[in-house]
Amino acid sequence: MWFDSPHLRVLIELSLAEDVGTGDHATQATLDPKRRGRAVVRAKSLAVVCGVPVFEQVLRRVDGTLQIRALCAEGALVEPGTDVIEIEGSLASILTGERTALNFLQHLSGIATLTRAFVEAVKPHGARIADTRKTRPGFRALDKYAVRMGGGVNHRTALDAGILVKENHTLAAGSVGAAIERARMVGSHLLKVEVEVETLADVDAALAARAEVILLDNMSLTQLREAVVRVNGRALIEASGNMTLDRVGAVAATGVDLISVGALTHSAPAADFSLRIDP
Amino acid sequence: MWFDSPHLRVLIELSLAEDVGTGDHATQATLDPKRRGRAVVRAKSLAVVCGVPVFEQVLRRVDGTLQIRALCAEGALVEPGTDVIEIEGSLASILTGERTALNFLQHLSGIATLTRAFVEAVKPHGARIADTRKTRPGFRALDKYAVRMGGGVNHRTALDAGILVKENHTLAAGSVGAAIERARMVGSHLLKVEVEVETLADVDAALAARAEVILLDNMSLTQLREAVVRVNGRALIEASGNMTLDRVGAVAATGVDLISVGALTHSAPAADFSLRIDP
Amino acid sequence: MWFDSPHLRVLIELSLAEDVGTGDHATQATLDPKRRGRAVVRAKSLAVVCGVPVFEQVLRRVDGTLQIRALCAEGALVEPGTDVIEIEGSLASILTGERTALNFLQHLSGIATLTRAFVEAVKPHGARIADTRKTRPGFRALDKYAVRMGGGVNHRTALDAGILVKENHTLAAGSVGAAIERARMVGSHLLKVEVEVETLADVDAALAARAEVILLDNMSLTQLREAVVRVNGRALIEASGNMTLDRVGAVAATGVDLISVGALTHSAPAADFSLRIDP
Amino acid sequence: MWFDSPHLRVLIELSLAEDVGTGDHATQATLDPKRRGRAVVRAKSLAVVCGVPVFEQVLRRVDGTLQIRALCAEGALVEPGTDVIEIEGSLASILTGERTALNFLQHLSGIATLTRAFVEAVKPHGARIADTRKTRPGFRALDKYAVRMGGGVNHRTALDAGILVKENHTLAAGSVGAAIERARMVGSHLLKVEVEVETLADVDAALAARAEVILLDNMSLTQLREAVVRVNGRALIEASGNMTLDRVGAVAATGVDLISVGALTHSAPAADFSLRIDP
Amino acid sequence: MWFDSPHLRVLIELSLAEDVGTGDHATQATLDPKRRGRAVVRAKSLAVVCGVPVFEQVLRRVDGTLQIRALCAEGALVEPGTDVIEIEGSLASILTGERTALNFLQHLSGIATLTRAFVEAVKPHGARIADTRKTRPGFRALDKYAVRMGGGVNHRTALDAGILVKENHTLAAGSVGAAIERARMVGSHLLKVEVEVETLADVDAALAARAEVILLDNMSLTQLREAVVRVNGRALIEASGNMTLDRVGAVAATGVDLISVGALTHSAPAADFSLRIDP
Amino acid sequence: MWFDSPHLRVLIELSLAEDVGTGDHATQATLDPKRRGRAVVRAKSLAVVCGVPVFEQVLRRVDGTLQIRALCAEGALVEPGTDVIEIEGSLASILTGERTALNFLQHLSGIATLTRAFVEAVKPHGARIADTRKTRPGFRALDKYAVRMGGGVNHRTALDAGILVKENHTLAAGSVGAAIERARMVGSHLLKVEVEVETLADVDAALAARAEVILLDNMSLTQLREAVVRVNGRALIEASGNMTLDRVGAVAATGVDLISVGALTHSAPAADFSLRIDP
Repeated sequence: MWFDSPHLRVLIELSLAEDVGTGDHATQATLDPKRRGRAVVRAKSLAVVCGVPVFEQVLRRVDGTLQIRALCAEGALVEPGTDVIEIEGSLASILTGERTALNFLQHLSGIATLTRAFVEAVKPHGARIADTRKTRPGFRALDKYAVRMGGGVNHRTALDAGILVKENHTLAAGSVGAAIERARMVGSHLLKVEVEVETLADVDAALAARAEVILLDNMSLTQLREAVVRVNGRALIEASGNMTLDRVGAVAATGVDLISVGALTHSAPAADFSLRIDP
Repeated sequence: MWFDSPHLRVLIELSLAEDVGTGDHATQATLDPKRRGRAVVRAKSLAVVCGVPVFEQVLRRVDGTLQIRALCAEGALVEPGTDVIEIEGSLASILTGERTALNFLQHLSGIATLTRAFVEAVKPHGARIADTRKTRPGFRALDKYAVRMGGGVNHRTALDAGILVKENHTLAAGSVGAAIERARMVGSHLLKVEVEVETLADVDAALAARAEVILLDNMSLTQLREAVVRVNGRALIEASGNMTLDRVGAVAATGVDLISVGALTHSAPAADFSLRIDP
Repeated sequence: MWFDSPHLRVLIELSLAEDVGTGDHATQATLDPKRRGRAVVRAKSLAVVCGVPVFEQVLRRVDGTLQIRALCAEGALVEPGTDVIEIEGSLASILTGERTALNFLQHLSGIATLTRAFVEAVKPHGARIADTRKTRPGFRALDKYAVRMGGGVNHRTALDAGILVKENHTLAAGSVGAAIERARMVGSHLLKVEVEVETLADVDAALAARAEVILLDNMSLTQLREAVVRVNGRALIEASGNMTLDRVGAVAATGVDLISVGALTHSAPAADFSLRIDP
Repeated sequence: MWFDSPHLRVLIELSLAEDVGTGDHATQATLDPKRRGRAVVRAKSLAVVCGVPVFEQVLRRVDGTLQIRALCAEGALVEPGTDVIEIEGSLASILTGERTALNFLQHLSGIATLTRAFVEAVKPHGARIADTRKTRPGFRALDKYAVRMGGGVNHRTALDAGILVKENHTLAAGSVGAAIERARMVGSHLLKVEVEVETLADVDAALAARAEVILLDNMSLTQLREAVVRVNGRALIEASGNMTLDRVGAVAATGVDLISVGALTHSAPAADFSLRIDP
Repeated sequence: MWFDSPHLRVLIELSLAEDVGTGDHATQATLDPKRRGRAVVRAKSLAVVCGVPVFEQVLRRVDGTLQIRALCAEGALVEPGTDVIEIEGSLASILTGERTALNFLQHLSGIATLTRAFVEAVKPHGARIADTRKTRPGFRALDKYAVRMGGGVNHRTALDAGILVKENHTLAAGSVGAAIERARMVGSHLLKVEVEVETLADVDAALAARAEVILLDNMSLTQLREAVVRVNGRALIEASGNMTLDRVGAVAATGVDLISVGALTHSAPAADFSLRIDP
Repeated sequence: MWFDSPHLRVLIELSLAEDVGTGDHATQATLDPKRRGRAVVRAKSLAVVCGVPVFEQVLRRVDGTLQIRALCAEGALVEPGTDVIEIEGSLASILTGERTALNFLQHLSGIATLTRAFVEAVKPHGARIADTRKTRPGFRALDKYAVRMGGGVNHRTALDAGILVKENHTLAAGSVGAAIERARMVGSHLLKVEVEVETLADVDAALAARAEVILLDNMSLTQLREAVVRVNGRALIEASGNMTLDRVGAVAATGVDLISVGALTHSAPAADFSLRIDP
């Protein structure tokens, strides 16, 4: 994760601009900017802690002199009540940046925590849990980082960082085979070609066209098992389509290599953290 | 909602830059950029539709010649299977912008849908459902717009657009009364002063200092009822603290004026939409 | 004042880009970049010094190694001839940033100085002097900060940070009462409603609709006195309309609470400062 | 004037962002966004009208469908009461952009109006009135455009668009002659060299070093007359230093070619305009 | 190629800002902005025409009303003297944008022209010509587009869009095999692994670790032939290292699949075009 | 050269964003971010070293803790094999920024090296070598800096930093004399007027109109010699038009003052540098 990217800097500036505006009235009223103290961020729910370096950058953007120290490793699973970050410096600065910094932390930890639950559910079967491009706009790199912190793996980060021939492309090209062939010609020699299929006949067509990865979308467990037999190691197999924690173990048991789960990034509830000062 | 703000434009540009990168390989491979067609966005879950104007702006940023037409009113509640947006123009442009545009739509509709559920739950009691500043970084104005579309009301948009004396400020000022007094001096004459309290004693202190709004944080139903009696119309009363759909009705029944719910914006699951082309 | 806001950073960058362009020819010709020295900024007119932290940021943006020291408190009233800032470091850097840094300082000190004159003029009567939204484009937060440094108070910073129903809104809504009622419904529960009126009849209408603040625009002293009697403490009273230093004392004597003065920010003459090096 | 420059676009966006924030509450409350009407901008003081193209761009940035028509030529001198701009379209859009658009117009017209007064004062003597780099930060190109609209001429726009050896440079180089010689070597062959002097002896030194323009700073009328005699057409002569409308005519009568006046851009009072809708 | 990307827009704005500054003096002096006419861009050297859509965007950024028409296909090879673009509209706008627009066109056509020469040189042998990441800063996507227009193929666009284990990585990991194994674990399942080697022993190590692409850096023709034999179709083979037009045919004859040439993007001389108006 | 300009910062950010994307897979796979070491940049061709301060800024933007030390003076001519920069710190950071930093260095050193060759070729004759506005878009200030490092001089940096009446302007104004007269009226009193002519008759017209610089475009050596005689010191003379290293000496021998060469910035081949780590 490249935490100092211009993209992240812009996102942090947007978020501080929208939250602080021209200044924090209540804090200015009650706290001399020079009064120093200590604050602690505490987990209030079971969480995989993720985003402490971003939390840090937000606070440092508000006040470059704050001292911020992580009290647990990035990616650690912590019990409710665990103190996870300690901050020292101007109390006014801490309170001004608090909400924005926590908003990043609770969002990323929420994704990491949900990812971990999916990863645990498939552990007996060796399948990997992957994310999708269904991320919050502007959060692509951060959300995918949180998935890795939860133990998942990343699908392509962008449309130009992998070739995935989806149903709409196949429709446009006329057939699975034609779509794969054209995609291979356009892409860099460093990219594999993955194709999304919805029937077993299309699995065969994909194999015939030497697809390197096959995405089985919305198939039943029976279909998935049959597809695994047909592919027989000639391509990587990814399964997708409304995965839930209840069902994902059974999908993994069919022998697929990867299971991609949109919910990791589009529906993870926030992890709960609070910041309290020690004035 | 001011849809043409510079802030929104930057957010849309960040999201397209991160999703499209240098180009959409699979679409370039399978679709002549001049091939025209029609696409439809369909709801796949019960949803309050929210964010169609943003969806439109994203697609127009990809290709200014696309024709986009809403098939239902912004804020409408739709059944699964309802077609909500129709697009005509270059199919390659539509597929290139699809994911980013849908990511905005599913996020905002998710918030509006959850808000509506809370609003329905308190309907018999006359309380209003309000949001918080616990929004996705960069999404403050959009998320609060979605809350309004779901029937909720907005708490302050930023630290400078309202004075809310929170627990940490009271701690710093020494007492509820001192904090309120200082806040009133600093703020514009157009802003009321709201104070967060955790005990009934502090309710009395807030009234004594003529707080215009009192936020009761994490109180039991009994405490809330008692606070409503004590305030007796001399201030607006807001309740907050881990509100769930199960509990919010009972809270509303205590007679509070507003109930603020962080989950509206930090934990709403995405609404589900798909785009299919008609090639 | 939040001096490290992205907005201020952009404004500083615009101003340096437009002033320095690709480089300072005359300085490059006459000064080795490594030659170090000391420079002093001196007031050449009676002034309330305002904007030293911005002056500092501009110079540090040109050269992060400059040492800059304020020689008087921000907001202090100084006599002509007083040295107000001392700078040490590369003389070439100082000369390159001089004009841009002084342009900020002379602008902000000009506003603070004029504000102080108005504040002095109303001192015997207890009214407060407030600014308006008639600020230089891009300078909203800075100009309002300068008003505070001069002893004034700030009216709303932006259209979303307060509700002021102006004449054009009343015209559109049909009546003062209708306009107030609608405004109250739309606004956050943390915002008061202020209404602009031009007649005593409308003062009564505003009171009937429970406006929390009433703005009396362009009224005669007689009308203002009558309005104060009618309101009788039920709302805050603000007076506005072509206020001059000659007339503002008499307006204050009518008993209004606030007097807003556009000239503070749209017509303050620059304060005069010069920078001289000690080579 | 290049009205579509990226710099101006950024400045307009900053100014709308700071003024509108997340939306205009009072307008949203009282006006349906679809309600259309007409508005007129009227001069309330004698003014040289300047900045109508910028006024237009601000409003079009708020709403691209507004129709805006200038009712007088850019640079025209108008009496109080003259209607100068007519706008048709969504009344809500007009009111939302009104203040920001007027802030540009009143600022630029203020500069043009003051410039015209100086130009009139020197008319009998043939000298030209020039501006300085003492402009509002971010407004360099706009402020200098307003000076031209008022009949003045522009001094250099930036440090790299002309070589002006100032007192601090001469101090650093050791002598007027040494400073000029070094400046000539560094600068482009398309730039003349101007040197600031404070004594008649330095006028001679400047002539000896073949300075193409000589700036006489803070000289008495007697000194100015003597300098004109000594230079005798061998260089352009510019006079500067605390020029007022009272004194500038006498300075022009000494025979100098240009008189530069910082007040044009740092101390011009705003011209007064109001916008009224016709609902 | 996604011509409307935010990245390209920023680059065009930077280039116009640096070239036009506050305005085009010579054009303002000699041409009424309303005077309309026609201009033609003519090739003055044999060139593959590339960048007409960018040329168009630059001119439209200066003046949205210009009519611009390509007179030949993007990517066409044209003789000196061929007219390639026709423009109609304000002559002042055309002259103001001319240089910046031509600078893009001559740069991109230069790359496409040189690429075509390399592609022609290897045509008998079936090898493809690829670019590298040695592009002008800021021009990555444009330069790679020009390579495609010249008949070449693109290597990875960025560090995250392909895995290329270079010599420095192997040094760090300890061995070719270890480096490949670690790279495979980190990368997306959609990316192949390519490894750079300098000896035949490392070719064997790369094959043993199942590298999907092997980059032979700076090898002699004899070594290249031997490597082709050893690989025997088990991996793609890329050759690189100081390729010249004289030598590239012989390298292609060794049987490698791709030849990457840094000079395509770092040393292509500009193609020559001129613009002449028809006033 | 003003290395900390906002323009350069934007260009560096664009270039890192396009090259690094969401992260450097191969480096992340093989190098612990905490592993420290040393790297050296070595020249692989004869080169004028130019751009080390930019190289430094790029790497510091990736990792602010890297230690970077120039091993030779900016502008020095070095033999192949010379070590020119030494870097210490996180090896992962060095490898992530390597390509972008080198791309700047090889581009700028390429320009400086070619410029030096032209300067050497005209040395016996006293003419100066000047650049043009034919620079890579976005690189104006950098490219012109590199020309200075190679011993050349800069023509105007932008359209507003000098007045050059070109052929198209003369065509529009009707005659050389009319064009010069109008240009003088529009421009600042600090700018000279240069006019481009193609015939000896126009040289006479330019002299009659008191042009301060005359640009002789595409003239034969005989014509150039004749023009020098006619001008006889009354104006500076610049020659331009397809200058090559072979011909430039003869052009200089005609007695012109300046020779401008587009190839310096539009066709200089990159200088060759490599970075190697010492792990």
